[in-house]
Amino acid sequence: MTSVADTGVEWLTADEMQAWRAYIETFADLTNALERDLVDVGITLGDYQVLVYLSETEDRAMRMSDLAELLQLSPSGLTRRLDGLVAAGAVTRKGSLRDRRVMMAVLTPAGLAMLERCAPHHVASVRRHIFDHLDAEQVAAMATIFTAIAAGLADEHSRRSGTAT
Amino acid sequence: MTSVADTGVEWLTADEMQAWRAYIETFADLTNALERDLVDVGITLGDYQVLVYLSETEDRAMRMSDLAELLQLSPSGLTRRLDGLVAAGAVTRKGSLRDRRVMMAVLTPAGLAMLERCAPHHVASVRRHIFDHLDAEQVAAMATIFTAIAAGLADEHSRRSGTAT
Repeated sequence: MTSVADTGVEWLTADEMQAWRAYIETFADLTNALERDLVDVGITLGDYQVLVYLSETEDRAMRMSDLAELLQLSPSGLTRRLDGLVAAGAVTRKGSLRDRRVMMAVLTPAGLAMLERCAPHHVASVRRHIFDHLDAEQVAAMATIFTAIAAGLADEHSRRSGTAT
Repeated sequence: MTSVADTGVEWLTADEMQAWRAYIETFADLTNALERDLVDVGITLGDYQVLVYLSETEDRAMRMSDLAELLQLSPSGLTRRLDGLVAAGAVTRKGSLRDRRVMMAVLTPAGLAMLERCAPHHVASVRRHIFDHLDAEQVAAMATIFTAIAAGLADEHSRRSGTAT
Protein backbone atom coordinates (compact mmCIF):
# COMPACT_ATOMS: atom_id res chain seq x y z
CA MET A 1 0.00 0.00 0.00
CA THR A 2 1.25 3.47 -0.80
CA SER A 3 2.66 5.17 2.25
CA VAL A 4 1.73 8.56 3.63
CA ALA A 5 5.14 9.95 2.73
CA ASP A 6 4.59 9.14 -0.96
CA THR A 7 1.27 10.89 -1.35
CA GLY A 8 0.85 13.51 1.35
CA VAL A 9 -2.49 11.91 2.29
CA GLU A 10 -3.09 11.53 6.01
CA TRP A 11 -3.85 7.81 6.36
CA LEU A 12 -6.74 6.65 8.58
CA THR A 13 -5.87 5.90 12.20
CA ALA A 14 -6.67 2.43 13.54
CA ASP A 15 -9.82 3.78 15.23
CA GLU A 16 -10.96 5.58 12.08
CA MET A 17 -10.28 2.48 9.99
CA GLN A 18 -12.37 0.40 12.40
CA ALA A 19 -15.26 2.88 12.19
CA TRP A 20 -15.03 3.11 8.40
CA ARG A 21 -14.89 -0.65 7.88
CA ALA A 22 -17.79 -1.24 10.26
CA TYR A 23 -19.84 1.34 8.35
CA ILE A 24 -18.90 0.46 4.76
CA GLU A 25 -19.32 -3.27 5.33
CA THR A 26 -22.72 -2.83 7.01
CA PHE A 27 -24.70 -0.05 5.37
CA ALA A 28 -25.49 -1.97 2.17
CA ASP A 29 -26.60 -5.04 4.14
CA LEU A 30 -28.72 -2.83 6.37
CA THR A 31 -30.37 -1.17 3.37
CA ASN A 32 -31.00 -4.60 1.82
CA ALA A 33 -32.59 -5.87 5.04
CA LEU A 34 -34.88 -2.83 5.31
CA GLU A 35 -35.80 -3.11 1.60
CA ARG A 36 -36.47 -6.85 1.97
CA ASP A 37 -38.85 -6.21 4.87
CA LEU A 38 -40.69 -3.54 2.84
CA VAL A 39 -41.22 -6.01 -0.03
CA ASP A 40 -43.81 -7.65 2.26
CA VAL A 41 -45.91 -4.49 2.10
CA GLY A 42 -45.14 -3.75 -1.56
CA ILE A 43 -43.09 -0.56 -1.39
CA THR A 44 -39.42 0.41 -1.79
CA LEU A 45 -37.44 2.29 0.84
CA GLY A 46 -37.05 5.22 -1.59
CA ASP A 47 -40.79 5.40 -2.31
CA TYR A 48 -41.56 5.14 1.40
CA GLN A 49 -39.25 8.08 2.05
CA VAL A 50 -41.04 10.17 -0.61
CA LEU A 51 -44.40 9.46 1.06
CA VAL A 52 -42.94 10.48 4.44
CA TYR A 53 -41.60 13.77 3.07
CA LEU A 54 -44.92 14.66 1.40
CA SER A 55 -46.95 13.64 4.47
CA GLU A 56 -44.95 16.03 6.66
CA THR A 57 -45.69 19.14 4.60
CA GLU A 58 -48.57 21.42 5.48
CA ASP A 59 -50.66 20.65 2.39
CA ARG A 60 -49.24 17.18 1.75
CA ALA A 61 -47.70 18.75 -1.33
CA MET A 62 -44.22 19.87 -2.29
CA ARG A 63 -42.75 21.75 -5.25
CA MET A 64 -41.17 19.22 -7.60
CA SER A 65 -37.98 21.28 -7.56
CA ASP A 66 -37.81 21.15 -3.74
CA LEU A 67 -38.44 17.40 -3.74
CA ALA A 68 -35.73 16.93 -6.38
CA GLU A 69 -33.32 18.94 -4.22
CA LEU A 70 -34.22 16.87 -1.13
CA LEU A 71 -33.68 13.61 -3.02
CA GLN A 72 -30.65 14.96 -4.90
CA LEU A 73 -32.24 14.10 -8.24
CA SER A 74 -32.38 15.88 -11.61
CA PRO A 75 -35.86 16.92 -12.85
CA SER A 76 -35.97 13.90 -15.19
CA GLY A 77 -34.60 11.66 -12.42
CA LEU A 78 -37.41 12.78 -10.12
CA THR A 79 -40.02 12.14 -12.83
CA ARG A 80 -38.77 8.58 -13.22
CA ARG A 81 -38.52 8.28 -9.44
CA LEU A 82 -42.19 9.20 -8.99
CA ASP A 83 -43.53 7.06 -11.84
CA GLY A 84 -44.30 4.07 -9.62
CA LEU A 85 -46.04 6.15 -6.93
CA VAL A 86 -48.04 8.02 -9.59
CA ALA A 87 -49.06 4.75 -11.27
CA ALA A 88 -50.11 3.41 -7.85
CA GLY A 89 -52.28 6.50 -7.34
CA ALA A 90 -50.28 7.49 -4.25
CA VAL A 91 -48.90 10.73 -5.68
CA THR A 92 -50.23 13.12 -8.32
CA ARG A 93 -48.39 15.88 -10.15
CA LYS A 94 -50.25 19.12 -10.68
CA GLY A 95 -49.70 22.83 -11.17
CA SER A 96 -49.52 24.95 -8.03
CA LEU A 97 -52.71 26.82 -7.14
CA ARG A 98 -50.63 29.96 -6.65
CA ASP A 99 -48.63 29.63 -9.85
CA ARG A 100 -49.68 27.06 -12.46
CA ARG A 101 -46.18 27.03 -13.93
CA VAL A 102 -44.84 25.55 -10.68
CA MET A 103 -45.34 21.78 -10.65
CA MET A 104 -46.21 20.18 -7.32
CA ALA A 105 -46.03 16.56 -6.15
CA VAL A 106 -49.15 15.88 -4.07
CA LEU A 107 -49.77 12.99 -1.67
CA THR A 108 -53.23 11.56 -2.41
CA PRO A 109 -55.54 10.08 0.24
CA ALA A 110 -54.62 6.67 -1.23
CA GLY A 111 -50.95 7.57 -0.78
CA LEU A 112 -51.51 8.57 2.82
CA ALA A 113 -53.38 5.31 3.41
CA MET A 114 -50.44 3.42 1.84
CA LEU A 115 -48.02 5.16 4.19
CA GLU A 116 -50.19 4.42 7.22
CA ARG A 117 -50.46 0.78 6.19
CA CYS A 118 -46.68 0.40 5.67
CA ALA A 119 -45.46 2.50 8.62
CA PRO A 120 -45.95 0.02 11.50
CA HIS A 121 -44.23 -2.70 9.46
CA HIS A 122 -41.34 -0.39 8.58
CA VAL A 123 -40.92 0.96 12.11
CA ALA A 124 -40.79 -2.60 13.45
CA SER A 125 -38.13 -3.38 10.82
CA VAL A 126 -36.04 -0.30 11.73
CA ARG A 127 -36.33 -1.16 15.40
CA ARG A 128 -35.34 -4.78 14.85
CA HIS A 129 -32.35 -4.01 12.60
CA ILE A 130 -31.05 -0.91 14.36
CA PHE A 131 -32.42 0.22 17.70
CA ASP A 132 -32.77 -3.20 19.33
CA HIS A 133 -28.95 -3.32 19.15
CA LEU A 134 -28.13 0.18 20.45
CA ASP A 135 -28.19 1.75 23.91
CA ALA A 136 -29.36 5.34 24.53
CA GLU A 137 -25.84 6.73 24.27
CA GLN A 138 -25.31 5.07 20.89
CA VAL A 139 -28.66 6.35 19.63
CA ALA A 140 -27.64 9.89 20.58
CA ALA A 141 -24.23 9.40 18.95
CA MET A 142 -25.82 8.09 15.73
CA ALA A 143 -27.82 11.31 15.46
CA THR A 144 -24.84 13.61 16.04
CA ILE A 145 -22.55 11.61 13.72
CA PHE A 146 -24.86 11.71 10.72
CA THR A 147 -25.99 15.25 11.40
CA ALA A 148 -22.31 16.29 11.32
CA ILE A 149 -21.65 14.32 8.12
CA ALA A 150 -24.79 15.78 6.51
CA ALA A 151 -23.70 19.32 7.44
CA GLY A 152 -20.33 18.68 5.80
CA LEU A 153 -22.01 17.38 2.62
CA ALA A 154 -24.40 20.36 2.53
CA ASP A 155 -21.49 22.73 3.03
CA GLU A 156 -19.54 21.17 0.18
CA HIS A 157 -22.67 21.11 -2.00
CA SER A 158 -23.29 24.83 -1.48
CA ARG A 159 -19.62 25.65 -2.13
CA ARG A 160 -19.64 23.64 -5.37
CA SER A 161 -22.87 25.17 -6.63
CA GLY A 162 -21.69 28.61 -5.53
CA THR A 163 -24.82 29.29 -3.49
CA ALA A 164 -25.44 29.63 0.24
CA THR A 165 -27.93 27.16 1.74
CA MET B 1 -50.53 8.12 11.37
CA THR B 2 -51.53 4.79 12.88
CA SER B 3 -51.09 4.82 16.62
CA VAL B 4 -49.21 2.31 18.73
CA ALA B 5 -52.46 1.05 20.24
CA ASP B 6 -53.81 0.08 16.81
CA THR B 7 -50.86 -1.98 15.69
CA GLY B 8 -48.93 -3.22 18.69
CA VAL B 9 -45.77 -1.71 17.18
CA GLU B 10 -43.52 0.18 19.57
CA TRP B 11 -43.14 3.57 17.86
CA LEU B 12 -39.69 5.23 17.70
CA THR B 13 -38.83 7.57 20.56
CA ALA B 14 -37.91 11.16 19.69
CA ASP B 15 -34.20 10.33 20.09
CA GLU B 16 -34.49 7.22 17.94
CA MET B 17 -36.42 9.16 15.29
CA GLN B 18 -33.71 11.81 15.26
CA ALA B 19 -30.98 9.17 14.82
CA TRP B 20 -32.95 7.35 12.14
CA ARG B 21 -33.75 10.48 10.15
CA ALA B 22 -30.16 11.71 10.35
CA TYR B 23 -28.97 8.34 9.06
CA ILE B 24 -31.56 7.67 6.34
CA GLU B 25 -31.36 11.19 4.96
CA THR B 26 -27.55 11.14 4.84
CA PHE B 27 -26.27 7.71 3.87
CA ALA B 28 -27.30 7.94 0.19
CA ASP B 29 -25.76 11.41 -0.15
CA LEU B 30 -22.60 10.16 1.53
CA THR B 31 -22.38 7.18 -0.82
CA ASN B 32 -22.95 9.49 -3.81
CA ALA B 33 -20.21 11.84 -2.64
CA LEU B 34 -17.72 8.98 -2.18
CA GLU B 35 -18.69 7.51 -5.59
CA ARG B 36 -18.37 10.93 -7.25
CA ASP B 37 -14.85 11.34 -5.86
CA LEU B 38 -13.87 7.88 -7.12
CA VAL B 39 -15.04 8.75 -10.65
CA ASP B 40 -11.90 10.91 -10.82
CA VAL B 41 -9.75 7.78 -10.56
CA GLY B 42 -12.07 5.62 -12.67
CA ILE B 43 -13.41 3.06 -10.19
CA THR B 44 -16.69 2.46 -8.36
CA LEU B 45 -16.98 2.16 -4.59
CA GLY B 46 -18.10 -1.46 -4.97
CA ASP B 47 -15.15 -2.38 -7.20
CA TYR B 48 -12.77 -0.61 -4.84
CA GLN B 49 -14.16 -2.68 -1.96
CA VAL B 50 -13.59 -5.92 -3.93
CA LEU B 51 -9.94 -4.94 -4.55
CA VAL B 52 -9.52 -4.20 -0.82
CA TYR B 53 -10.96 -7.58 0.19
CA LEU B 54 -8.73 -9.48 -2.23
CA SER B 55 -5.62 -7.45 -1.29
CA GLU B 56 -6.07 -8.40 2.36
CA THR B 57 -6.02 -12.16 1.79
CA GLU B 58 -2.81 -14.15 2.11
CA ASP B 59 -2.51 -15.04 -1.57
CA ARG B 60 -4.47 -12.06 -2.92
CA ALA B 61 -7.09 -14.64 -3.85
CA MET B 62 -10.44 -15.67 -2.47
CA ARG B 63 -12.90 -18.46 -3.22
CA MET B 64 -15.67 -17.07 -5.40
CA SER B 65 -18.21 -18.51 -2.95
CA ASP B 66 -16.58 -16.70 0.00
CA LEU B 67 -16.47 -13.43 -1.94
CA ALA B 68 -20.15 -13.85 -2.89
CA GLU B 69 -21.00 -14.41 0.78
CA LEU B 70 -19.01 -11.35 1.82
CA LEU B 71 -20.74 -9.18 -0.79
CA GLN B 72 -24.14 -10.85 -0.22
CA LEU B 73 -24.42 -11.75 -3.90
CA SER B 74 -25.66 -14.81 -5.77
CA PRO B 75 -23.08 -16.69 -7.91
CA SER B 76 -24.43 -15.03 -11.09
CA GLY B 77 -24.60 -11.68 -9.29
CA LEU B 78 -20.92 -12.00 -8.36
CA THR B 79 -19.98 -12.91 -11.94
CA ARG B 80 -21.68 -9.75 -13.22
CA ARG B 81 -20.15 -7.79 -10.34
CA LEU B 82 -16.61 -8.87 -11.31
CA ASP B 83 -17.04 -8.36 -15.08
CA GLY B 84 -15.67 -4.80 -15.04
CA LEU B 85 -12.65 -5.67 -12.90
CA VAL B 86 -11.92 -8.75 -15.05
CA ALA B 87 -12.20 -6.67 -18.25
CA ALA B 88 -9.83 -4.11 -16.71
CA GLY B 89 -7.35 -6.90 -15.97
CA ALA B 90 -7.52 -6.19 -12.24
CA VAL B 91 -9.01 -9.55 -11.27
CA THR B 92 -8.80 -12.98 -12.86
CA ARG B 93 -10.96 -16.02 -12.20
CA LYS B 94 -9.21 -19.38 -12.05
CA GLY B 95 -9.50 -22.83 -10.57
CA SER B 96 -7.93 -23.33 -7.14
CA LEU B 97 -4.50 -24.98 -7.13
CA ARG B 98 -5.74 -27.31 -4.39
CA ASP B 99 -9.03 -28.20 -6.04
CA ARG B 100 -9.62 -27.21 -9.67
CA ARG B 101 -13.40 -27.39 -9.15
CA VAL B 102 -13.20 -24.47 -6.69
CA MET B 103 -13.17 -21.15 -8.56
CA MET B 104 -11.04 -18.37 -7.13
CA ALA B 105 -11.08 -14.61 -7.71
CA VAL B 106 -7.44 -13.46 -7.89
CA LEU B 107 -6.10 -9.92 -7.64
CA THR B 108 -3.58 -9.36 -10.44
CA PRO B 109 -0.48 -7.15 -10.13
CA ALA B 110 -2.39 -4.65 -12.31
CA GLY B 111 -5.30 -4.83 -9.84
CA LEU B 112 -3.00 -4.20 -6.90
CA ALA B 113 -1.46 -1.25 -8.77
CA MET B 114 -4.99 0.08 -9.43
CA LEU B 115 -5.80 -0.17 -5.72
CA GLU B 116 -2.56 1.57 -4.74
CA ARG B 117 -3.24 4.32 -7.26
CA CYS B 118 -6.83 4.88 -6.03
CA ALA B 119 -6.26 4.45 -2.29
CA PRO B 120 -4.79 7.87 -1.39
CA HIS B 121 -7.56 9.60 -3.34
CA HIS B 122 -10.22 7.48 -1.65
CA VAL B 123 -8.77 7.88 1.84
CA ALA B 124 -8.68 11.65 1.38
CA SER B 125 -12.34 11.50 0.30
CA VAL B 126 -13.37 9.39 3.30
CA ARG B 127 -11.50 11.74 5.60
CA ARG B 128 -13.05 14.84 4.07
CA HIS B 129 -16.63 13.51 4.08
CA ILE B 130 -16.58 11.66 7.41
CA PHE B 131 -13.67 11.96 9.81
CA ASP B 132 -13.01 15.67 9.41
CA HIS B 133 -16.45 16.14 11.02
CA LEU B 134 -16.15 13.68 13.93
CA ASP B 135 -14.29 13.78 17.24
CA ALA B 136 -12.56 10.72 18.74
CA GLU B 137 -15.62 9.76 20.79
CA GLN B 138 -17.86 9.82 17.73
CA VAL B 139 -15.35 7.77 15.75
CA ALA B 140 -15.40 5.13 18.49
CA ALA B 141 -19.21 5.25 18.64
CA MET B 142 -19.48 4.84 14.85
CA ALA B 143 -17.47 1.62 15.10
CA THR B 144 -19.55 0.15 17.95
CA ILE B 145 -22.89 1.20 16.37
CA PHE B 146 -22.24 -0.46 13.03
CA THR B 147 -20.52 -3.46 14.57
CA ALA B 148 -23.67 -3.99 16.69
CA ILE B 149 -25.98 -3.57 13.68
CA ALA B 150 -23.81 -5.93 11.62
CA ALA B 151 -23.93 -8.54 14.37
CA GLY B 152 -27.71 -8.31 14.41
CA LEU B 153 -27.89 -8.73 10.63
CA ALA B 154 -25.50 -11.70 10.73
CA ASP B 155 -27.55 -13.26 13.51
CA GLU B 156 -30.77 -12.89 11.55
CA HIS B 157 -29.06 -14.15 8.38
CA SER B 158 -27.84 -17.30 10.13
CA ARG B 159 -31.27 -17.90 11.70
CA ARG B 160 -32.99 -17.53 8.34
CA SER B 161 -30.59 -19.82 6.53
CA GLY B 162 -30.72 -22.27 9.44
CA THR B 163 -26.95 -22.37 9.87
CA ALA B 164 -24.62 -21.13 12.57
CA THR B 165 -22.03 -18.59 11.48
